[in-house]
Amino acid sequence: MKNVSLPESWEEETEVIVIGSGFAGLAAAIEAKNAGNSVIILEKMKGYGGNSVISDGVVAVPGTTFQENAGIKDTPQLMLEDMLEAGLNLNHPELVGTLVEHAADTFQWTIDYLGVTYRDQVLRLGGHSIPRSHITGKNSGSEIIKKQIEKIKSLGIRVRTRVCLENILKDSDEHVCGVTVREGYQFPDQSSGVRKFIKAKKCVVLATGGYASDVEFRSIHDPRLTDNVDSTNKYSTTAEAIKEALRIGAMPIHLSWIQLGPWTSPDEKFYGIAPEFSDYIVFQFGIMVDPRTGKRIVNELDDRKVMSDTILNTGHPCIGIADARGVEVSGYRVDHCLRKDIAKAFSQISDIAEHYEIPSRELMESIESYNSYVVEKLDPLFGKPILDNAEPLSNPPYYCIRIWPKVHHTMGGVLINGEAQVLNLSKQPIKGFYAAGEVTGGVHGASRLGSCAIIDCLVFGRIAGKNAAKS
Amino acid sequence: MKNVSLPESWEEETEVIVIGSGFAGLAAAIEAKNAGNSVIILEKMKGYGGNSVISDGVVAVPGTTFQENAGIKDTPQLMLEDMLEAGLNLNHPELVGTLVEHAADTFQWTIDYLGVTYRDQVLRLGGHSIPRSHITGKNSGSEIIKKQIEKIKSLGIRVRTRVCLENILKDSDEHVCGVTVREGYQFPDQSSGVRKFIKAKKCVVLATGGYASDVEFRSIHDPRLTDNVDSTNKYSTTAEAIKEALRIGAMPIHLSWIQLGPWTSPDEKFYGIAPEFSDYIVFQFGIMVDPRTGKRIVNELDDRKVMSDTILNTGHPCIGIADARGVEVSGYRVDHCLRKDIAKAFSQISDIAEHYEIPSRELMESIESYNSYVVEKLDPLFGKPILDNAEPLSNPPYYCIRIWPKVHHTMGGVLINGEAQVLNLSKQPIKGFYAAGEVTGGVHGASRLGSCAIIDCLVFGRIAGKNAAKS
Repeated sequence: MKNVSLPESWEEETEVIVIGSGFAGLAAAIEAKNAGNSVIILEKMKGYGGNSVISDGVVAVPGTTFQENAGIKDTPQLMLEDMLEAGLNLNHPELVGTLVEHAADTFQWTIDYLGVTYRDQVLRLGGHSIPRSHITGKNSGSEIIKKQIEKIKSLGIRVRTRVCLENILKDSDEHVCGVTVREGYQFPDQSSGVRKFIKAKKCVVLATGGYASDVEFRSIHDPRLTDNVDSTNKYSTTAEAIKEALRIGAMPIHLSWIQLGPWTSPDEKFYGIAPEFSDYIVFQFGIMVDPRTGKRIVNELDDRKVMSDTILNTGHPCIGIADARGVEVSGYRVDHCLRKDIAKAFSQISDIAEHYEIPSRELMESIESYNSYVVEKLDPLFGKPILDNAEPLSNPPYYCIRIWPKVHHTMGGVLINGEAQVLNLSKQPIKGFYAAGEVTGGVHGASRLGSCAIIDCLVFGRIAGKNAAKS
Repeated sequence: MKNVSLPESWEEETEVIVIGSGFAGLAAAIEAKNAGNSVIILEKMKGYGGNSVISDGVVAVPGTTFQENAGIKDTPQLMLEDMLEAGLNLNHPELVGTLVEHAADTFQWTIDYLGVTYRDQVLRLGGHSIPRSHITGKNSGSEIIKKQIEKIKSLGIRVRTRVCLENILKDSDEHVCGVTVREGYQFPDQSSGVRKFIKAKKCVVLATGGYASDVEFRSIHDPRLTDNVDSTNKYSTTAEAIKEALRIGAMPIHLSWIQLGPWTSPDEKFYGIAPEFSDYIVFQFGIMVDPRTGKRIVNELDDRKVMSDTILNTGHPCIGIADARGVEVSGYRVDHCLRKDIAKAFSQISDIAEHYEIPSRELMESIESYNSYVVEKLDPLFGKPILDNAEPLSNPPYYCIRIWPKVHHTMGGVLINGEAQVLNLSKQPIKGFYAAGEVTGGVHGASRLGSCAIIDCLVFGRIAGKNAAKS
């Protein structure tokens, strides 16, 4: 990563260069084009959509007609308060304010302009004080991406794949004026492809996502996150673009705030199918023990940060245990986990102890103690709230799963302002340089609430694209 | 902060430039000089010593003769484990390892080579699993600085005051080769003084301290820390040198991990005299309430991060309350706080309520509840450990203090390796560039344990100075 001099002549010119083709990049490209600009979209991978295509497509928005129909009163202010609380007040209130103020009209834009459909249902997810999470018709973020791509095409632009950002270039006035890229790039070989200089007559929009899969970069900021910890993200969520933005003077923010999911299994790759079983059955109606001691280590319904940190700090996967009745009561499934050997069934507790090499007597004691807490509706050990329909763990078969957190979202990135301008180390906008989505930091603070990522990408992506016209 | 071109000719040359004259900078200068180098020490303020001169001079070291004499068994490994636990495992184990391995010989060096004296006493501070904190004879960090300055003089060098770093310069090989400074600088006017180019033939050592007093910079990384929050540090602990290091490509780390002290009063500046009263009397034998509600908000003996966050998140100072018996039992003083009007005495609880505008009935209930917890030796509300010699709050006069946290230490900074080399965004050493002390990050992780700062500065300062010879 060295300075590259400006070329004598550029090989290509456009008004706006958008880097990344996920929710944020495509939203920026659409708005920039609609504002009358020529736009080039660059994507380092061979397929478009980045990590957005594996998103679950759940979108938090305050004040929608879906909420209204369900009799739910919500306001931008309430969503802001929820996000600040989850973010431990490390969020920049200005950025959260921008997000919540533009959420409803951006959501409506996905319906009216993009043609995205949503189920007539509003979920209340953890950390949200009321139901405000909307689900795409097909339960997937790829539905939004697909509609964005259709729009992109109808606007006469396209995503150039296998083109990786190499350098962001500034002119002598410190104004971002173009990029060098590697065309024909083969992830992750930084020397693959052929270098090309592309001039951005108006601006560059960085929408390259987070660094959940970048072991070197993430483990600098959180040394626990070595390659011993997997990610729920695609392999392509790496940090080279963030580093390039920092190299040209962007202010870093919250790089060490890296969110892990505590519901994942080390026995499969990526997000996988384990979370449904662990989150909705084990944590609700069962327990989790450290196999070295046979003891519980945490309130299994604590927030994802507390749970992930606790498991991670044991240094090894922990064992989640549920029983047949828990599965039944939950309304969720374990059979697909059993089929893929991610969960295992046991007819008695001693078999669990033997299989996972857990001290048998301690495991037995942990289960007996927990069962007595269920009866008393009080967990004096960790204060876990005992659900009304919970019963003692005593109905075999017992279903077990190895649980080990995975990196899920990186809250940190480059600092932007409410206009999606990237700020420098003196907190001033870097001229001609915008960013949106997970590559930025400060919106979510210490912890991103579930279903707040898509709307973040769309709101700031659109703002960046609209502002491109003014650059 | 723009690129400055290399000069045609330098106005001055030396082998090693040390920036900052606190513990770390002076240690680096001494070692660099002893290794045969010409050394220039630059200090932006008019006095030498930086924030180190107001340090309390308490030094954590494992395996000293003081510990041995007191029958305390300690090892570098044990100190490492304590530091990692406090740091929430965000510390870089390599850096902690370097610190603890070199702590004992560096401590001995302060005695044998510098002539620092220590009391024959070893303290156990919060978060340390055994007593390992050593106190300078005069209870002050300035004693170490004074001895370092004497040594500096005897080596024929001196601290050039009112010389502020402006730019760090790299040659075409990305090797740090010198600096521009402002001579005759008047803090905090960045345009004051006259620019001068100084060449570093071997290296530049950055030892410029933290950014506890830099409201703009710290509030980017923790937006709660506006100018509504004071600092225990000198005004001069600002971020311009860290920003310059980032500008030339240093990897930032842990910038949002900013430590606050929960024992401070908004009714005096800096560290002040309040902490003795709040920490050793109020928190131990009394309670703290939110004046808006009259209720307790936290276990008053929780760690400094939990307590500071809780107070900060109320948005206003909270009220600490102790009584005459608490003062007596503690062995500490309240009279100097009363004299300076930082603490106030009240003959009855209703007077406290009236003075601080606390809902009277709620305050009364809080005290009565707490008193019953003291009798039962159990605090069901926040789990505060009730001390053996605690008694109900019922012995007037009652002594009260307004409590509002202050920024105390910034764990973040530029990333170094165990050789004190500053690392770039690709985790490679920036040639000719070293750093030590609070300007670096990664040693303390999420939270610095009390008494671990001085030894951090001295160990890495010495390493940086010794390595200068090899540059």
